[in-house]
Amino acid sequence: MTETTRVTAAFIIIGNEILSGRTQDANLSFLAGRLGEAGIQVVEARVIPDVEETIIHTVRELSAKVDYVFTSGGIGPTHDDITADAIARAFGTETFEDPDAVAILERHYAEGEFNAARRKMARVPRGSTLLDNPVSSAPGFRIENVHVLAGVPKIMQAMVDMLLPSLTRGAVVESRTITVLIGESVIATEMGEVEAAFADVDVGSYPYFKPGASGTSIVLRGSNIPMLEQALAAITAKLEAREIEIWSGDHK
Amino acid sequence: MTETTRVTAAFIIIGNEILSGRTQDANLSFLAGRLGEAGIQVVEARVIPDVEETIIHTVRELSAKVDYVFTSGGIGPTHDDITADAIARAFGTETFEDPDAVAILERHYAEGEFNAARRKMARVPRGSTLLDNPVSSAPGFRIENVHVLAGVPKIMQAMVDMLLPSLTRGAVVESRTITVLIGESVIATEMGEVEAAFADVDVGSYPYFKPGASGTSIVLRGSNIPMLEQALAAITAKLEAREIEIWSGDHK
Repeated sequence: MTETTRVTAAFIIIGNEILSGRTQDANLSFLAGRLGEAGIQVVEARVIPDVEETIIHTVRELSAKVDYVFTSGGIGPTHDDITADAIARAFGTETFEDPDAVAILERHYAEGEFNAARRKMARVPRGSTLLDNPVSSAPGFRIENVHVLAGVPKIMQAMVDMLLPSLTRGAVVESRTITVLIGESVIATEMGEVEAAFADVDVGSYPYFKPGASGTSIVLRGSNIPMLEQALAAITAKLEAREIEIWSGDHK
Repeated sequence: MTETTRVTAAFIIIGNEILSGRTQDANLSFLAGRLGEAGIQVVEARVIPDVEETIIHTVRELSAKVDYVFTSGGIGPTHDDITADAIARAFGTETFEDPDAVAILERHYAEGEFNAARRKMARVPRGSTLLDNPVSSAPGFRIENVHVLAGVPKIMQAMVDMLLPSLTRGAVVESRTITVLIGESVIATEMGEVEAAFADVDVGSYPYFKPGASGTSIVLRGSNIPMLEQALAAITAKLEAREIEIWSGDHK
């Protein structure tokens, strides 16, 4: 793949605590941002329960569909951590106790603290490669194009930063944002015209509502940067022609 | 369905801005919490791009799999709001301009402000039922078991509260949380024993790491409340037998 290729990713969040509403996911926006900087586009994310068949089905489906899959959650030391076994099964293999993983964990824990439960964290699918965990040492793993990471945000995010250099980079999608203090319907025609005129640019509009300041952020996105700049100039000219005041910055 | 039935839901978040990492989703935890109170379990959530074929495929798959599907995003007045058409196609029908929706929007906007772009928000699939939007008036719609809602959290959440009474309620899953100031691997055996002994209770453990206070929240979940209380007593007794201090409350 060259630097101008489209490289895609999918993210599987394994966790009953997200589906129950107990915890709000913070990993998707982090992963999407970091991968985006490397020119890798997250094209789908799924939140699924800790159910083996669901993990197997989801991993297989997304692994076949995108260049890279990332999972978070379910690789700890407890009974409900079934991810490693499920992912092994998704690729027709089984887990084994990896001596390298055992060595990493033995170095991390104090004498006598490396108990049977913690030893479970050394079990990874046959044929996988360990992924560094600079926070709590228990490694993740990569099998085929699937990267299996911890769920705790601090750990997951450190693991992503460690593995990023190993990924093939694609064309970086940049964005340009214009904010106006009017509703999106008022400028719908102009946005549609710009989207139609610049094939490589994606035009999105995001209304926001705050006391005393509602409006719309127009976000142009694309990896063809000269065309992106042309599209920005075009929408700016259209708004100025209608004497619509443009606020720079990005109101989320 | 009776009040003790399991009722399931899936949530489809339609939005390039979530997949790009620009915006962090806040609707899943809200929806999961509200539905949970009504005994409806969210069993899967997906974040997908504004791509017609992806919307059609995802809606069809999840609609067949769960009792209720909810979508958020992509039903505004602009060129990139393709959700209504895609969902109509998912059910083999097409959109039309619903006179009731037009009447609602005409009442909402001041004289002369109901422009062509806003009129687009009155287009819904044939055979669908309008869903109230108490914030910005533009209605959502229900077709088959799919509820199509706005993406802006304030609007989405108000729409959920309006439609909740129309849903069939299931058995409410309650949770009980115990927090201990030790790592999850230390109590993995006890949690596994309790999960095995109480078939209707799901035992999850969620480690947290904060400066000076890391530990584990043990979360028991189930709709069989007497069994849930028994499981809580059992894990409490096991921890006390090992002289592990129990903190009440829920450290997220």
